Amino acid sequence: MAEFDLVIRGGTVVTAAGASRCDVGVTDGRVVALGEALSGGRERVDATGKLVLPGGIDAHCHIAQRGSQGTETADGFRSGSISAACGGTTTLIPFAAQYKGQSLRQVVESYRARAEGEAVIDYAVHLIVSDPTEQVLGQELPALIRDGYTSFKVYMTYDSLKLDDSQMLAVLATARREGAMVMIHAENHDVIAWLTERLLAAGHTAPKFHGIAHAAPAEREATQRAITLAEILDVPVLIVHVSWREAIEAIRSAQARGLRVFGETCPQYLFLTADDMDRSGFEGAKYVCSPPPRDAANQEFVWRGIQDGTLSVFSSDHAAYRFDDPQGKKLAGENAPFHSIPNGVPGLEIRLPMLFSAGVRSGRITLEQFVAVTATNPARIYGLNPRKGTIAVGSDADIAVWDPDKEVTISAAMLHDAMDYTPYEGRKVTGWPILTLSRGEVVWDGTAPRGAPGRGRFLPCDLPAPAKPQGRFVAGFDPNSGDYTG
Amino acid sequence: MAEFDLVIRGGTVVTAAGASRCDVGVTDGRVVALGEALSGGRERVDATGKLVLPGGIDAHCHIAQRGSQGTETADGFRSGSISAACGGTTTLIPFAAQYKGQSLRQVVESYRARAEGEAVIDYAVHLIVSDPTEQVLGQELPALIRDGYTSFKVYMTYDSLKLDDSQMLAVLATARREGAMVMIHAENHDVIAWLTERLLAAGHTAPKFHGIAHAAPAEREATQRAITLAEILDVPVLIVHVSWREAIEAIRSAQARGLRVFGETCPQYLFLTADDMDRSGFEGAKYVCSPPPRDAANQEFVWRGIQDGTLSVFSSDHAAYRFDDPQGKKLAGENAPFHSIPNGVPGLEIRLPMLFSAGVRSGRITLEQFVAVTATNPARIYGLNPRKGTIAVGSDADIAVWDPDKEVTISAAMLHDAMDYTPYEGRKVTGWPILTLSRGEVVWDGTAPRGAPGRGRFLPCDLPAPAKPQGRFVAGFDPNSGDYTG
Amino acid sequence: MAEFDLVIRGGTVVTAAGASRCDVGVTDGRVVALGEALSGGRERVDATGKLVLPGGIDAHCHIAQRGSQGTETADGFRSGSISAACGGTTTLIPFAAQYKGQSLRQVVESYRARAEGEAVIDYAVHLIVSDPTEQVLGQELPALIRDGYTSFKVYMTYDSLKLDDSQMLAVLATARREGAMVMIHAENHDVIAWLTERLLAAGHTAPKFHGIAHAAPAEREATQRAITLAEILDVPVLIVHVSWREAIEAIRSAQARGLRVFGETCPQYLFLTADDMDRSGFEGAKYVCSPPPRDAANQEFVWRGIQDGTLSVFSSDHAAYRFDDPQGKKLAGENAPFHSIPNGVPGLEIRLPMLFSAGVRSGRITLEQFVAVTATNPARIYGLNPRKGTIAVGSDADIAVWDPDKEVTISAAMLHDAMDYTPYEGRKVTGWPILTLSRGEVVWDGTAPRGAPGRGRFLPCDLPAPAKPQGRFVAGFDPNSGDYTG
Amino acid sequence: MAEFDLVIRGGTVVTAAGASRCDVGVTDGRVVALGEALSGGRERVDATGKLVLPGGIDAHCHIAQRGSQGTETADGFRSGSISAACGGTTTLIPFAAQYKGQSLRQVVESYRARAEGEAVIDYAVHLIVSDPTEQVLGQELPALIRDGYTSFKVYMTYDSLKLDDSQMLAVLATARREGAMVMIHAENHDVIAWLTERLLAAGHTAPKFHGIAHAAPAEREATQRAITLAEILDVPVLIVHVSWREAIEAIRSAQARGLRVFGETCPQYLFLTADDMDRSGFEGAKYVCSPPPRDAANQEFVWRGIQDGTLSVFSSDHAAYRFDDPQGKKLAGENAPFHSIPNGVPGLEIRLPMLFSAGVRSGRITLEQFVAVTATNPARIYGLNPRKGTIAVGSDADIAVWDPDKEVTISAAMLHDAMDYTPYEGRKVTGWPILTLSRGEVVWDGTAPRGAPGRGRFLPCDLPAPAKPQGRFVAGFDPNSGDYTG
Repeated sequence: MAEFDLVIRGGTVVTAAGASRCDVGVTDGRVVALGEALSGGRERVDATGKLVLPGGIDAHCHIAQRGSQGTETADGFRSGSISAACGGTTTLIPFAAQYKGQSLRQVVESYRARAEGEAVIDYAVHLIVSDPTEQVLGQELPALIRDGYTSFKVYMTYDSLKLDDSQMLAVLATARREGAMVMIHAENHDVIAWLTERLLAAGHTAPKFHGIAHAAPAEREATQRAITLAEILDVPVLIVHVSWREAIEAIRSAQARGLRVFGETCPQYLFLTADDMDRSGFEGAKYVCSPPPRDAANQEFVWRGIQDGTLSVFSSDHAAYRFDDPQGKKLAGENAPFHSIPNGVPGLEIRLPMLFSAGVRSGRITLEQFVAVTATNPARIYGLNPRKGTIAVGSDADIAVWDPDKEVTISAAMLHDAMDYTPYEGRKVTGWPILTLSRGEVVWDGTAPRGAPGRGRFLPCDLPAPAKPQGRFVAGFDPNSGDYTG
Repeated sequence: MAEFDLVIRGGTVVTAAGASRCDVGVTDGRVVALGEALSGGRERVDATGKLVLPGGIDAHCHIAQRGSQGTETADGFRSGSISAACGGTTTLIPFAAQYKGQSLRQVVESYRARAEGEAVIDYAVHLIVSDPTEQVLGQELPALIRDGYTSFKVYMTYDSLKLDDSQMLAVLATARREGAMVMIHAENHDVIAWLTERLLAAGHTAPKFHGIAHAAPAEREATQRAITLAEILDVPVLIVHVSWREAIEAIRSAQARGLRVFGETCPQYLFLTADDMDRSGFEGAKYVCSPPPRDAANQEFVWRGIQDGTLSVFSSDHAAYRFDDPQGKKLAGENAPFHSIPNGVPGLEIRLPMLFSAGVRSGRITLEQFVAVTATNPARIYGLNPRKGTIAVGSDADIAVWDPDKEVTISAAMLHDAMDYTPYEGRKVTGWPILTLSRGEVVWDGTAPRGAPGRGRFLPCDLPAPAKPQGRFVAGFDPNSGDYTG
Repeated sequence: MAEFDLVIRGGTVVTAAGASRCDVGVTDGRVVALGEALSGGRERVDATGKLVLPGGIDAHCHIAQRGSQGTETADGFRSGSISAACGGTTTLIPFAAQYKGQSLRQVVESYRARAEGEAVIDYAVHLIVSDPTEQVLGQELPALIRDGYTSFKVYMTYDSLKLDDSQMLAVLATARREGAMVMIHAENHDVIAWLTERLLAAGHTAPKFHGIAHAAPAEREATQRAITLAEILDVPVLIVHVSWREAIEAIRSAQARGLRVFGETCPQYLFLTADDMDRSGFEGAKYVCSPPPRDAANQEFVWRGIQDGTLSVFSSDHAAYRFDDPQGKKLAGENAPFHSIPNGVPGLEIRLPMLFSAGVRSGRITLEQFVAVTATNPARIYGLNPRKGTIAVGSDADIAVWDPDKEVTISAAMLHDAMDYTPYEGRKVTGWPILTLSRGEVVWDGTAPRGAPGRGRFLPCDLPAPAKPQGRFVAGFDPNSGDYTG
Repeated sequence: MAEFDLVIRGGTVVTAAGASRCDVGVTDGRVVALGEALSGGRERVDATGKLVLPGGIDAHCHIAQRGSQGTETADGFRSGSISAACGGTTTLIPFAAQYKGQSLRQVVESYRARAEGEAVIDYAVHLIVSDPTEQVLGQELPALIRDGYTSFKVYMTYDSLKLDDSQMLAVLATARREGAMVMIHAENHDVIAWLTERLLAAGHTAPKFHGIAHAAPAEREATQRAITLAEILDVPVLIVHVSWREAIEAIRSAQARGLRVFGETCPQYLFLTADDMDRSGFEGAKYVCSPPPRDAANQEFVWRGIQDGTLSVFSSDHAAYRFDDPQGKKLAGENAPFHSIPNGVPGLEIRLPMLFSAGVRSGRITLEQFVAVTATNPARIYGLNPRKGTIAVGSDADIAVWDPDKEVTISAAMLHDAMDYTPYEGRKVTGWPILTLSRGEVVWDGTAPRGAPGRGRFLPCDLPAPAKPQGRFVAGFDPNSGDYTG
């Protein structure tokens, strides 16, 4: 075995399958050996007493994304990727968002251009499909999938993005035919719009009414509907940012019936509540996101969803809008009505430490589960494994060395994103990465970010294995092929 | 006590509360006395050994209804009401159907005119709302409700009738404000349309593919959605013609959560299966209705829904299209593709006897349950009690005297509707009315219909008690009043 | 029609089937006529503006019952029947309790003797079977059933009463063979005993630990087990005094699967909580009963169980032990450990008014549901209909005339039982009977009890119709007949 | 890095976390390196095109076990371990079974003596606790746990083994205090005994009636009860050999409520049905095991339990009794009544190939899931990880090299156990190990077993991490410590 570029010594390497006390040998940015006492190494990292974990994959984050109303997220690829790296994340999968009338291909090219020269860690790109024309579904999507854009998100709400059920079916049929993975934002648009109109008419404009408008039953309903549409087509889907216990139950029930329905949740549903949106003045705007945080009792149900595997992906849904900023939360002015507040909270950097602290340290989940939901599962679901998401021979050396006992008090000041607030100001966590490696190169040294912007590469994704069709059609009819075997 | 016009002697009077061996005294068309041995009576009926039951209320039937495509149901008020009476039914509640662009008031007037001089039994009228404009919801509906049209049906499918969720919310809000009852045809339109398009494209045009297009998950989904919309508004709803076990489960679960969601089912879901639509030639067309009959195992779940009260109304959904008729099942020709076959099966006359035979005689349900689901519950749910639906002092003398042991073989020839077939040809049942009284007058003497067309009267309905709002708003917001009490 | 002994005029007569404005004619203690304007009547009651309801059936109460430890309930048939009558109840079904080694027949005779000359209203008798020997099951029970003791209760807990699963099966098989109804006290004995032992060992002796020992999962478990045993034998069972939401769910789920499992609940589960057992000093002892009151949130689930019909019987489970009495709650002394406090709360007289006020007045249930769960359903389930439980021609004139607007503040002082406390001291209710008739005779005139002790008669019960076997054996084996049809 | 004893080259190494194309370096029986191209190796295995999987752990098998009635399982440690090895299994965890009155310590010593000099692969030992005296729970068990017997099984049925609920609680409390894992055979004894008695009395003695006696509801019930007992004590449990869909649902529901309840299933519930027990003559006896195989539709639900993680362990429950043998299935003679047929089917050798073929090859589960349920999960649940159950640096080199395309027709003749039949005679599978290594030594070379009897070692188990208490006590009472924090 040739000399290693780098050896990480003495740590406890953890994968979704278990922990092993061993060294990690890295050459050319990849893990080339795991061994009891690897000799050599041009560089060496002493990880004694530390945890050596796969770098996180943040499979749901909005980076350098332009809204239909002219907003742009606070974080572009530079600050976003730096912030992620400082929190132990080594892969981002943000979105190239199509709006009505746009060519998907052009959307992707434009989006890729925004990443050029900026990222310090690798990234793949999900597509957002909001205009599923025949051209898009028949020509552009198949070509893009072949180019490595193998997952796409659809919205059941938001005026500028939402698909109706018929369009959803068309997109799902395309995904099935091509072997791609569909992510779904599941909230009932009409319910939200109707409640919003009435709330505004009644003069209820404060940020907390965002939570009333985005009523929990609207999330349950859309989740059930999304599952039904997927069932009709026998196609796997992933319900993103699941916030509500009844939506979790709908997913669990679907899985129990043998459907391949995946669920994702985010820090805001474990650590925030609707009360946060009711803080004095306009402070509540900081916590406005969709779906909104629910009540405190609901948090326990989200934990259970992670614990029993119903929810298999933990992402940030980082959608960063500065608070004191006319391009941010105050887009429509101080104290603007809730529906005009840009939706989203930041979370790139705190995602892993907060879950580690409240999950692993508290005994709620195992280290293996932590690795699974933050790295291994998203890699598998989006076609990035075995390159990303685990520590194995042949995988990229995307690694975070964690000090499990490090105590950190979270504050906006210490984070590396472009934000002027964090929803978790003052929260204390135990455990934080003291070193993050991207393809074997240091991007966070425990004190400061490192690595040149632009070193991060685009990751074309494989067809995700979990998206492979199984052929269990309702009543025997395959709507793609037209075959009837009932 | 004055002399009775009529006394029914010696029978066993059954209500939803129990059975009582007593005589029934009728004067001026109403029950004025129940007693152990009522003396007198200008007319007398000997009911010894017989059951004296409330005449049935068929709360879901299409009579003299014109389709948007120019069809008209085979049965008008004359044949429809006669057929119903011969099967023990004494009240019909058919639909005045609005199509897009029509004035509800004019629709009602036109519909009422069709009934003029025709009916032999009394009838109320449900409204079908397909164009819920501000004019309709704000002006016409409230006035019509005051005039006794206190229930309306909305469709989640059919191009010419369907409402989107936003329109549904507007209708439900109106119902809540006015105290009316909403009936919902719950099937996901987009799923059905999308599957239909693909089935046709693949050349699957036989009648049985109607059942494939109207996939069971589409019914479950729409039922869940309808429940959610009702939950948002804290308004009771009745899901009509529930056919599928998962839809029943959705209703049961809603009831268990304290929601006032009612369910109705029909003979076709107890006695027909999808296989019937697969009969040779074009025969399957006779069984095409929506939702379609499901598989045999599913029938047991429908029975359970009746047994445990999840389904509280049993109607015919009589929608009669003659088989060998260019205005009927062959509207688009012999062997026309499934989607062009008029939907519906007849059932006015066999509704009660088939349920009696397979339900009461077999021990599946009690006589009290039979009376409840066929008469008492619909009367209560639609604001007709105490006038209709039970045998009590003060109620109309709408009564069917049943011979519980009478054996009858059903055939199209023996029925009194305008049809050229019955889906139940050759079925043997035990138990049939030998006398039907409408307001004390004989309309079926056990051998032949009696009673002059036109004697049946229009019944204005009260505001249904079960529709009374309770004020349990999701998260404390009343979208009608604008009050927030969260 | 001959002259009536009594006519109740002008009231609104309510049965489980609905309400009717009519007069009630009574002769020889039975309702012989219902009519619009009944003439005559040697006696007349003006019920204008009042509700005329079936007298309640308290199908679960402990009257003149001697415990295995020498206790005797505070109320015998005299005070018990008077108290019940003053609260609108006209039928009691207390228990003749067998202890190990006793002859059931002798138990019954001894118990009947205690009733002799005491009761002012009619009563049937349930058997408690705690020693199901071959003699008991093969000889005594069948004979007793023929004599009108058609229901029996078994206990899954209490040292002196409990049956093991094998004994339960033997009792259930007997019930099935004979057509009797089985009532089950469902709590897991071993769990309670084991927790009790450990609580006492740890010095946790206060009354509130009764609630900890009788852990809610122990009730859920035993309920599930009881249902399973009944399922094996295809025999209906009634789970008594259901207190816990998960037990309700178990019953609902069984009903949805087509099993005939009935559920009963009591005032203490709607109106008391575990906190009541934690009152200062020994006050908590007043609220000690089994199962214990649960938390406040649970009450809503009990209401829902009544609303959707899962729970079809509402009884008092009156088990009266005076507080300041060495034969009562202080049997083992002031501040005795929780397990030595006699279990039970009084409720005969407040049962109906409290449910009327919090249920009917508040809109939670309809008047018809009130009548059903307090009178009609228990009559049907225990073989007393049509004689008791409704107002119909031929039924006994057991009637309570209610003033629905009467405001009453409950206190021990105003009640007519033998108790020195009521758990509901100071509660305000709206609605109370102003007249109670037993077979046409006044037993409560709205101010004072009337009627001579001893006028109440023993009621032999018919075989309950709901207990009729259906023959749906698990895997096709009938353990009674030995037939296998799998 | 020193010279390896052995290098496995060119294969695809699969763990529960994923697959990696790499070489495996083994020294001193342990995996010391995983690398891209490991040089050297005194021995080399070419695994090109093959799968390199962790050797299976058969965590539920009866080896050299003597029954209370004098039976002894056909397979001792020699044939049992050889058969297992030939099917890719490298660790056995059979049972040292205590019968009433026996010292657990002596049981263990006697059992260990039977293994001496016999096993070719390593083994741990579960304890069966049937006499939980204070001596056993207070003295023997804690000492044995310290010696590495950290899991014990209890039975809810079988006369000679069953515990009542109180004993179960005592055992669970001990497990909680000591940190051990409890396995539960969950069937309701009284139901089975009662049905058996009646079946025999009715002359139903054929083998198929074993399936009737072990009624599915008896399994559901006991599973629910076991979960309740565990919930009371906040202690994890594993329900062994789950066969029935409702039991799976009970486990899923418990997991969803946050309880740590694990489930195991076996080949007989995926691949056999009740019809197999109905084969002609006495053939059915070959398939008699407990719980019995259920119907064909149920198999799909077992698959779903594996797919969604409700069932996390797949074991053989190998309990081998020769068919044509007076010590085997014919213990009580040819055509003996079903209850006297020794319970059990063999499965050591076919366990992995049948799951691989029907699970992985068919696409029902992933390779990672296969590894998890057959090796990684049992290692973790029983305290054997990281030594066993995965391929990681530091783990024992217990490895099976699989040819995923090898086609094999199963027959008793080709298997290496001591049996004269296999329930799977003639079944075709695709995929079989072509090499099995135990601590780096070949024990199956693809053609013949190798390795000297006695080379297998006893494995003391650690306290299982999943058994760590969490402190979520029902109503706040810890029955072990006596603490009340309600």
